[in-house]
Amino acid sequence: MPTFNIQLFEGRTAEEKRKFVEAITRTTCETLGCEPGSVDIILTDVKRENWATAGKLWSEQK
Amino acid sequence: MPTFNIQLFEGRTAEEKRKFVEAITRTTCETLGCEPGSVDIILTDVKRENWATAGKLWSEQK
Amino acid sequence: MPTFNIQLFEGRTAEEKRKFVEAITRTTCETLGCEPGSVDIILTDVKRENWATAGKLWSEQK
Amino acid sequence: MPTFNIQLFEGRTAEEKRKFVEAITRTTCETLGCEPGSVDIILTDVKRENWATAGKLWSEQK
Amino acid sequence: MPTFNIQLFEGRTAEEKRKFVEAITRTTCETLGCEPGSVDIILTDVKRENWATAGKLWSEQK
Amino acid sequence: MPTFNIQLFEGRTAEEKRKFVEAITRTTCETLGCEPGSVDIILTDVKRENWATAGKLWSEQK
Repeated sequence: MPTFNIQLFEGRTAEEKRKFVEAITRTTCETLGCEPGSVDIILTDVKRENWATAGKLWSEQK
Repeated sequence: MPTFNIQLFEGRTAEEKRKFVEAITRTTCETLGCEPGSVDIILTDVKRENWATAGKLWSEQK
Repeated sequence: MPTFNIQLFEGRTAEEKRKFVEAITRTTCETLGCEPGSVDIILTDVKRENWATAGKLWSEQK
Repeated sequence: MPTFNIQLFEGRTAEEKRKFVEAITRTTCETLGCEPGSVDIILTDVKRENWATAGKLWSEQK
Repeated sequence: MPTFNIQLFEGRTAEEKRKFVEAITRTTCETLGCEPGSVDIILTDVKRENWATAGKLWSEQK
Repeated sequence: MPTFNIQLFEGRTAEEKRKFVEAITRTTCETLGCEPGSVDIILTDVKRENWATAGKLWSEQK
């Protein structure tokens, strides 16, 4: 029953997401030996102004 | 101090959410024996294009 | 497809958890109008030394 | 490698967020003795209609 | 900067986890076009007595 | 009502955690202008065998 919560920068197209979740699910089933139907993936689009590394928002990184 | 993070498909009305959190809080207090004031619930509206089951986004399920 | 992540202090018995998730699922289906099979609940037992309110760990509250 | 997920009510300006993540990162490095580059912070803006305390949404609190 | 939080039933060996995160990272970089160094994965081992589907804990499913 | 979920490597002492949450709460109140009582912090101790960067578990990094 693996459940994925994946946070990534916003801006991915529906097509990129479609391929991404399909590939992640396949890889998961191959390496963990589980059924595709047991894999749930929830994507969270994060704005660059809401993610900071080293104390600096990505909207301000250069 | 139970804290709930609940992910559900977007599209619920404010009235549905109002009844939902009220009922969940009551049920929690009855079964766990805690005070209503100690129950926090955060809802996250998830787009169907951001949730996949079995490798397929719900925006593409038929 | 509501998915619950619930953080609560450790110390609940298996029986308390059993009743809790059963009641929460029933309440969810009644108020949101969804199928029981679509409700997932993940509980996280949190130690009092890992939860702080007002800057103070619960292991140190009196 | 501390990673922060911080949920707060929506409405903060970019400037407030900028100062907040900078200060949190500095405080973290001082108290835990880690490098700024190892600190990631993700902010989640939560609408008042999606957060309930004591069974009541904050959009309805008076 | 994709960051994964993956919840799965406890019981996986260190070797299974090693192969899993390696494969997930490779798949992510191939489909999203990002650097391996930008991919963080955090696994959470969940006890069957802490995960319920359809109102029933997995420790009680038969 | 900021609520923090902070994931960090296991191994911190209770004393380190005590100072950390106290300092984080103070910094939060100063920069966001909120009451200490509205700040909740939940720490999650993550084993090195459950955290990967660049496809490699930290238990295997050298």
